Amino acid sequence: MDDSACYAVIFSSLRSESVDGYDEMSRRMEELARKQAGFLGIESARGADGFGITVSYWSDEAAIAAWKQNAEHLLAQSRGRGEWYSVYSVRVARVERSYGWTRDST
Amino acid sequence: MDDSACYAVIFSSLRSESVDGYDEMSRRMEELARKQAGFLGIESARGADGFGITVSYWSDEAAIAAWKQNAEHLLAQSRGRGEWYSVYSVRVARVERSYGWTRDST
Repeated sequence: MDDSACYAVIFSSLRSESVDGYDEMSRRMEELARKQAGFLGIESARGADGFGITVSYWSDEAAIAAWKQNAEHLLAQSRGRGEWYSVYSVRVARVERSYGWTRDST
Repeated sequence: MDDSACYAVIFSSLRSESVDGYDEMSRRMEELARKQAGFLGIESARGADGFGITVSYWSDEAAIAAWKQNAEHLLAQSRGRGEWYSVYSVRVARVERSYGWTRDST
């Protein structure tokens, strides 16, 4: 992922007890996000305690705004508040620098 | 957490098979981070597949640099590369805006 001067959307959430349709929606939203203009990448983790973090990366703020207003995504957001989440927070941040490390497999 | 104009450090990692001492180190690093000047908050999630995301929030870049160089943290980073992680990435980002939602419990 080329994340020079990109934007990160940090979505932290605690799941509710309601599971109906959640996994399907989650997969669908990731599939749909990947098709949006300006999409750069997505990473997600959720523990057994129901707390999860998803970070998606975007080329600019306009791409983030367009994704937030995507019709199918709006429905998912609404169902998320109605059923799937107890609490969530969204933080939009500008990536200033990044580095990584990978174990040498040799 | 007051995160107006704060910085987020997004640490994504895939755990290795080695578990020895990891949980203890993880708890200790969070405890230690909380005592650092400029620390604002931390959230963490790791799934059963071993992939995890930890986001810590800091007042400024100097606080992040100081934490990165903390002696005990340096040892943990070194052991992380030697034992606990297969791959990781670090992204430093400036939080531009944030919002949250909480289910009305009434």
